[in-house]
Amino acid sequence: MKPPNDPGGSRRPIKGRKIADRRVRVERPHAAFFRYTGEGSLVAKAAASRPLTRAGRFVARVSAIALGRPLASEEEIGERLSKKKALAIFSSDAISSSAYATEEILRVLILAGTAALLVSIQIAIAIAIMLAMVALSYRQVCRAFPGGGGAYAVARSELTPMLGLIAAGALLIDYVMTVAVSTSSALDQIFSIAPGIASLRIEIGILAIVLITVGNLRGLRESGNIFAVPTYVFLALAMLIVASGVVHIVTGEAHPLPHQANAEPLGTEALGLLLLLRAFASGSVALTGVEAIANGVPAFKPPEAKNAANTMTMMSILLAIIFIGLTVVAHAYGIIPSLHGAPSVVALVAGTAFGDGPLYYTFQIATALILFLAANTSFNAFPRLAAILADDGYMPRQFAFRGDRLAYNWGIVVLAGIACLLLVAFGGVTTMLIPLYSVGVFVCFTLSQVGMVRHWRRVRETGWWWRASINGIGAVMTGVVLVVVASVKFTSGAYLVVILIPILVAMFWFIHHQYGAAARQLAMRPDQIVRPPHRDERVIIPVPTLNRAVVQAVNVGRSISEDVRAVYISDDPDQATELRKRWQQQVPGVPLVIVESPYRALVGPLVAYLDVLDSAWPADHEAPITFVVVPEYVARHWWERILYNQSAKRLRTALLGRPHTVVVNVPYRREDPIFETRTRGAGPGSDAGTDAGLDPQTSNAPQR
Amino acid sequence: MKPPNDPGGSRRPIKGRKIADRRVRVERPHAAFFRYTGEGSLVAKAAASRPLTRAGRFVARVSAIALGRPLASEEEIGERLSKKKALAIFSSDAISSSAYATEEILRVLILAGTAALLVSIQIAIAIAIMLAMVALSYRQVCRAFPGGGGAYAVARSELTPMLGLIAAGALLIDYVMTVAVSTSSALDQIFSIAPGIASLRIEIGILAIVLITVGNLRGLRESGNIFAVPTYVFLALAMLIVASGVVHIVTGEAHPLPHQANAEPLGTEALGLLLLLRAFASGSVALTGVEAIANGVPAFKPPEAKNAANTMTMMSILLAIIFIGLTVVAHAYGIIPSLHGAPSVVALVAGTAFGDGPLYYTFQIATALILFLAANTSFNAFPRLAAILADDGYMPRQFAFRGDRLAYNWGIVVLAGIACLLLVAFGGVTTMLIPLYSVGVFVCFTLSQVGMVRHWRRVRETGWWWRASINGIGAVMTGVVLVVVASVKFTSGAYLVVILIPILVAMFWFIHHQYGAAARQLAMRPDQIVRPPHRDERVIIPVPTLNRAVVQAVNVGRSISEDVRAVYISDDPDQATELRKRWQQQVPGVPLVIVESPYRALVGPLVAYLDVLDSAWPADHEAPITFVVVPEYVARHWWERILYNQSAKRLRTALLGRPHTVVVNVPYRREDPIFETRTRGAGPGSDAGTDAGLDPQTSNAPQR
Repeated sequence: MKPPNDPGGSRRPIKGRKIADRRVRVERPHAAFFRYTGEGSLVAKAAASRPLTRAGRFVARVSAIALGRPLASEEEIGERLSKKKALAIFSSDAISSSAYATEEILRVLILAGTAALLVSIQIAIAIAIMLAMVALSYRQVCRAFPGGGGAYAVARSELTPMLGLIAAGALLIDYVMTVAVSTSSALDQIFSIAPGIASLRIEIGILAIVLITVGNLRGLRESGNIFAVPTYVFLALAMLIVASGVVHIVTGEAHPLPHQANAEPLGTEALGLLLLLRAFASGSVALTGVEAIANGVPAFKPPEAKNAANTMTMMSILLAIIFIGLTVVAHAYGIIPSLHGAPSVVALVAGTAFGDGPLYYTFQIATALILFLAANTSFNAFPRLAAILADDGYMPRQFAFRGDRLAYNWGIVVLAGIACLLLVAFGGVTTMLIPLYSVGVFVCFTLSQVGMVRHWRRVRETGWWWRASINGIGAVMTGVVLVVVASVKFTSGAYLVVILIPILVAMFWFIHHQYGAAARQLAMRPDQIVRPPHRDERVIIPVPTLNRAVVQAVNVGRSISEDVRAVYISDDPDQATELRKRWQQQVPGVPLVIVESPYRALVGPLVAYLDVLDSAWPADHEAPITFVVVPEYVARHWWERILYNQSAKRLRTALLGRPHTVVVNVPYRREDPIFETRTRGAGPGSDAGTDAGLDPQTSNAPQR
Repeated sequence: MKPPNDPGGSRRPIKGRKIADRRVRVERPHAAFFRYTGEGSLVAKAAASRPLTRAGRFVARVSAIALGRPLASEEEIGERLSKKKALAIFSSDAISSSAYATEEILRVLILAGTAALLVSIQIAIAIAIMLAMVALSYRQVCRAFPGGGGAYAVARSELTPMLGLIAAGALLIDYVMTVAVSTSSALDQIFSIAPGIASLRIEIGILAIVLITVGNLRGLRESGNIFAVPTYVFLALAMLIVASGVVHIVTGEAHPLPHQANAEPLGTEALGLLLLLRAFASGSVALTGVEAIANGVPAFKPPEAKNAANTMTMMSILLAIIFIGLTVVAHAYGIIPSLHGAPSVVALVAGTAFGDGPLYYTFQIATALILFLAANTSFNAFPRLAAILADDGYMPRQFAFRGDRLAYNWGIVVLAGIACLLLVAFGGVTTMLIPLYSVGVFVCFTLSQVGMVRHWRRVRETGWWWRASINGIGAVMTGVVLVVVASVKFTSGAYLVVILIPILVAMFWFIHHQYGAAARQLAMRPDQIVRPPHRDERVIIPVPTLNRAVVQAVNVGRSISEDVRAVYISDDPDQATELRKRWQQQVPGVPLVIVESPYRALVGPLVAYLDVLDSAWPADHEAPITFVVVPEYVARHWWERILYNQSAKRLRTALLGRPHTVVVNVPYRREDPIFETRTRGAGPGSDAGTDAGLDPQTSNAPQR
């Protein structure tokens, strides 16, 4: 599929010969890449942002077929989501949490023996009530922030920047945890139907994250239709499980599983308040991902806010039914969590409901896929939030850069790296990751509810009191749950998040301060006028030998200044003498300085030589700008980067902080026509063809 | 300690202000860093290679006190080693292997029950005979290759380059294994006296390797006197153990240990030929490191070859006595290897001989230290061999680079990395690493003996027949052992080495081929003469905003060419309009092109703009050289490198392969006087002091 506004067709890679082709083909050279909008103003077309590498272009073509073409900012309006599609895309995160929430409740209650498992139903209902409250609150966020009201945006604009940063830190943690928890839970589902590969848990988990990462680096978008399939399959089959389970219960056919291999051993703790709170805290992970729709309001078809709010309601109802339903059915079947996570509770429920048939396998695969989709949503959300933070100066700027495929590569890679580390550190065990997950989520919930209360008090539109109370109740509720989760789960991992959020906030402030200080240092007063410079220039060319790359560097050096000298650093005096002889013959007019380096060092003697040159300059004159012109060999393969240009890299690093000094890298490629030589003794123009890079027309051009 | 030929005293870091100071202080600017040896010829003094960073200089001072100052190539002759010191330095690798060789024999024999342990003495004697043969052979290498005859040098010059590369591959593996085996055996010794920390095996092992690595990166040399101490303590105490053990045996007081906790369970295998061969193969690890003296002949005091040969004899005798002695005594005390390596067999022997007193602890610490010293010798040998291979074009050139502290940083880091990986992969268990070790060692032995036979046949000096037979017998013997080791240990790890050597050789050839191809592509005919260029130049400055760094880049750009234009790439038209207004006022004469990038990409639109400029050039003219001048902010801290200049890096990468294009990085530092501005309306010279970078003398200098 071609972008509609690309008359020039596909863009070829930048190659010397290609330019010549295009020169003939394209009449108005701007046309292919730019729209001319006035004196010195151009607007880039899609062609100007195409991938530069061959692999990148191939993937772009494949994914354009599978996923649709990438969108420009202004085009996005044409691609709004219907409610049906939005439900599939935005709710994978929230709905997929029903795959592990019931199990987390049972895992706590089992400590008090089988009888305690009955309480799981009450706890599930309590969580569903909280879900309803949060969903009501977020319906209001959809209306109040139609631009997409992430917790960071709400807290920053309605509360203080500091609370915004806390929300941002919590959100970043939340996204990382979504990847880790969803991946490890997806593995539990896979191992439930394929227990043989369970020993490769970590490896498969990392492989999955790597695949999702590569997909996202290549510009994978979640908007494709294929993403809706697993969500609807999961929804349909989960409903079927719940329905058949209810029928079984009503008809009295719900018999407990006779014997469950690999079950968690029963505990003997008393069913006290603390245990109930812990079970509630564990189960509240069902609420994670609910906010996704509120963040994505602009992606809905108009009326955006209303459609988003209704989708939010729909999603919450579905989630509540599946969550409570699975909990009730699991209890009716007498299911106990497995010792090492697999088979999972949902797998056991599905197995009891469907038997060992194709429906069971389909459901398990759909569950694993919806969990991977949930992980994938974080790969969109994390880099986008990081880019917003980078634009606001709270994260390093490269998080706002877009790669070849217009993906925020830095954010994607950092997210994948941290998620993999978490997976390894916690052995890919879902239960151990949950405490880290819930705290971040409830920090965001609470902050955005509190922000909404402030919002309504500020705008005071009709019914603001009513709206503010809903958000207020939501804030109190989620705040209490936050305190409960953080305290009962403190020792089992929640303390990490409690430490991490202040560290992240401190990092945001530090970076903000740094960028501010640098901007002040670099600032110019508006009344300062820049005049042309008068400084002398001098060119130093460190040469490793005499070859075509060096000649090219010499030519570039000569076009910068007339004061050009080459420096040869060597520990071998014989080679030096030989090079001097060749040099004087073949490069007349450019002096060669030989620096013997008995310590076999390269950078030190060169820097010392530059120092000596500077200090030899008369004291009452400013030293000239020194251009250090470094020949480089253009690598055409990745491994060539290891083999070549390492000296050039070191010189650049060593010279970066040097005053009056500018490093010029001159890449050499064989086709490059900068290269100009003349056969000795041959008359002007008579030596055509003796050398690939020779330029007979111009070899007797006057010296500049 | 100052280098003797450094009249200028310590060299200060390169800073703008320092140059001015030095200009006043130093009359002949060459004097501090260079010796002037003729027209355009300088020889760098030690001062020119001093560390450039503050931390580097501090470490240099500390280690100069502890270890002596670094040596220039030509100075090394003044630092020759006496036999006593050479024994300590070169033999740590060989002698330290007596700390695990006996144990390796016992570990195999125990599979046939306690009775089989008696055979360990015969096996030790057989190995000692082979040691004598190898030592005799290497005495001859000392005489034939007084320049240092590593297996690579011998095989390359006496056999074929291919066999040289096989030897090089085997040697590199050998050095890596020395680090891994010595470190893990040192850990066994430490855990023998401190079993409480044995669970941190991998962590402590990696810590030890990291410490050795840092020491070597900082220019640690093994020549210091402190390195001799552990070797001599180990030698003295080992002799004492052997002597007291022999006395016990003679007087009949050598009672077997009553009960040995944690002992390896007795096996029930028959004591067949295969088991004997396996025990012999395991014990032959005692020979590792014997070649070190032959590699280091030039470091001896004259007469080098004779002194080295005699040291070789001495070392072999000591090693044989200790190895056989420890084996005999261990058997007399009825010692059985421990299940997890600690307490080690030497520790059990020493414990029986010395009791639980200070001598025991001293011996264990000395044993651990001599093993770490053995690991340290590889940190000298591996990078040096890699540098030789790099100089010969068989490894990437950066292995021949020397860092600030004149250490081969690349080799050191690669060695440490691989050794750590091995330690982790094999759980730091010495026994599991041994099979990988012996194969490489015996490949080197065999190749260098065969090479020596060829050598004697070629030179045919008096008694060559006799000498050739010694080396011939040595070659056959080590060749047979090589086959035995490789076959009986094949499945337990030796196959890795058998696979790895061809892979390494293939890699060497590939790299050699690449460098050769590149050199041919770059080669110039000797009759080609380089004339001054005639090409037009054009400067493009991508600007992120208008600030002092940008102004500096504009000034540099203007001094390169008169055709300068700035390009601003943005997705925000309002910001663009604002910048254009400021730019036209403050930087008159330099046009600003605004490229709107609705896809928020930076690199793509810039490259497309450069393409458009090129294609707009008349078809019958060559396109000018395009200088892309990129402003950079000089980072003063490591974290600043993360925060700044990321765009500059991306532009450089994207433009590296572009024809006619040269990237110029202009670093900005506040002190840098390239920066020149003029307050609007102020007369020439009247605006002194209004701006830090202002240069009143020159602000009305004529335009270039």
